[in-house]
Amino acid sequence: MAGNDKDALLNFLLRMGDSALILGHRVSEWCGHSPVLEEDIALANTALDLIGQTQLWLEYAAEIQGEGNSADDLAFLRDAWDFRNFLLAELPNGDFGRTMMRQFLFDAWASILLPRLAQSSDPRVAEIAAKAAKEAAYHLERSADTVVGLGDGTAESHDRMQAALDYLYPYVGEMFLSDEGDAALAAAGVAPDPASLRNEYDALLKRVMNEATLELPDTRFTHSGGRDGRMHTEHLGHLLCSMQWLQRAYPGSTW
Amino acid sequence: MAGNDKDALLNFLLRMGDSALILGHRVSEWCGHSPVLEEDIALANTALDLIGQTQLWLEYAAEIQGEGNSADDLAFLRDAWDFRNFLLAELPNGDFGRTMMRQFLFDAWASILLPRLAQSSDPRVAEIAAKAAKEAAYHLERSADTVVGLGDGTAESHDRMQAALDYLYPYVGEMFLSDEGDAALAAAGVAPDPASLRNEYDALLKRVMNEATLELPDTRFTHSGGRDGRMHTEHLGHLLCSMQWLQRAYPGSTW
Repeated sequence: MAGNDKDALLNFLLRMGDSALILGHRVSEWCGHSPVLEEDIALANTALDLIGQTQLWLEYAAEIQGEGNSADDLAFLRDAWDFRNFLLAELPNGDFGRTMMRQFLFDAWASILLPRLAQSSDPRVAEIAAKAAKEAAYHLERSADTVVGLGDGTAESHDRMQAALDYLYPYVGEMFLSDEGDAALAAAGVAPDPASLRNEYDALLKRVMNEATLELPDTRFTHSGGRDGRMHTEHLGHLLCSMQWLQRAYPGSTW
Repeated sequence: MAGNDKDALLNFLLRMGDSALILGHRVSEWCGHSPVLEEDIALANTALDLIGQTQLWLEYAAEIQGEGNSADDLAFLRDAWDFRNFLLAELPNGDFGRTMMRQFLFDAWASILLPRLAQSSDPRVAEIAAKAAKEAAYHLERSADTVVGLGDGTAESHDRMQAALDYLYPYVGEMFLSDEGDAALAAAGVAPDPASLRNEYDALLKRVMNEATLELPDTRFTHSGGRDGRMHTEHLGHLLCSMQWLQRAYPGSTW
């Protein structure tokens, strides 16, 4: 594989793996703290699915990188600036409503992207995506239902969901940015250009927000910097501090 | 030095150093977050004094331990179960009032103990304590003033200070527990038996709480486990996670 193509594929795999990892860790923070038992178990399951996807994406990333790292090394021994997750994934949980809104905004993206990736010219990408797509479809069903239920619920739940949407929406656009590497991957049939998914995403959001009686912010401004490791929020470092503690304190520990 | 005496002295030095370190770290968490600039600087100064004391206590502890560790190694490379700080020091900051109440409860203890330690038969202990005693006297002046000002302030500040005292008081007794090692150190003139300081402490608390219009809880129950490393609160691990991050992620780093 030529150097540029390898870099583009590695960046793509890290973006997929890191976004699943960081969001999965965030969601796992709810374990034992959810408002009702059913939601607690559902969130823990979502987190587990995401960590499972992480394992597959980062395993492949480590192979492509070719430096002898394992998926665990990539997850637990990189510092903030080497992570390629979307900023959306690292934002703090906030209340249950905000967590579910973030989940919906991510699930909607994943549920559109993953079925296309399942047709990738790269058989390994296709295989991982096919498995992840089933989980994403299920996650979307749950998170969309919750967004509608809380958005079109009590006055307080409505206000909280609107506040969550207003807070999170300026991070949505980063999932649809693309660069030269993405163009090369698209040309090679490895992955669709992220920007090409936006219309379908917008239509899905419009439909769900309409049903949830929530108003989509009228702006295309987006924070960015996560997907290319240019700049993360202050929250990522604190998250890594907890997430990586064990491997940092006891290097090389295994189960 | 006989084995038992060495253990007793080491435990004592770790208790002093770890309590100063952990409280110092907690207080440093206020940096940039205090209600007014003057308090922000004052708290940062208090934290610096405590970290300075830590350096001296743990340096001596490392020498007595004789395993080639530095004070930094003891601070940054031990895990929770090896810490010997009082539980009081590791409790979360809560609001500004609770932080200042915790500071007062600690300063009152330090301001009684340290002048006596300055007369220690161990010249190194005497030297460290003489320096620390001056700082503790100043800390006590500030924290006692604040406890009185907020306790005898508005209805809200009074209620918050009473709540802080009610929350923290069950951790006070640990500073006055003693065991065989403490008895040996007292017999050798190294350090007074902790229990022997309680009457003076109680009188000081009574005086200040009276002026602050706060009511001392009518109980001698105390949480314990920190001073002997038997059991820390869940909060210590999270604190270490932040405090030790740099040395854990970049082992052997120096300024």
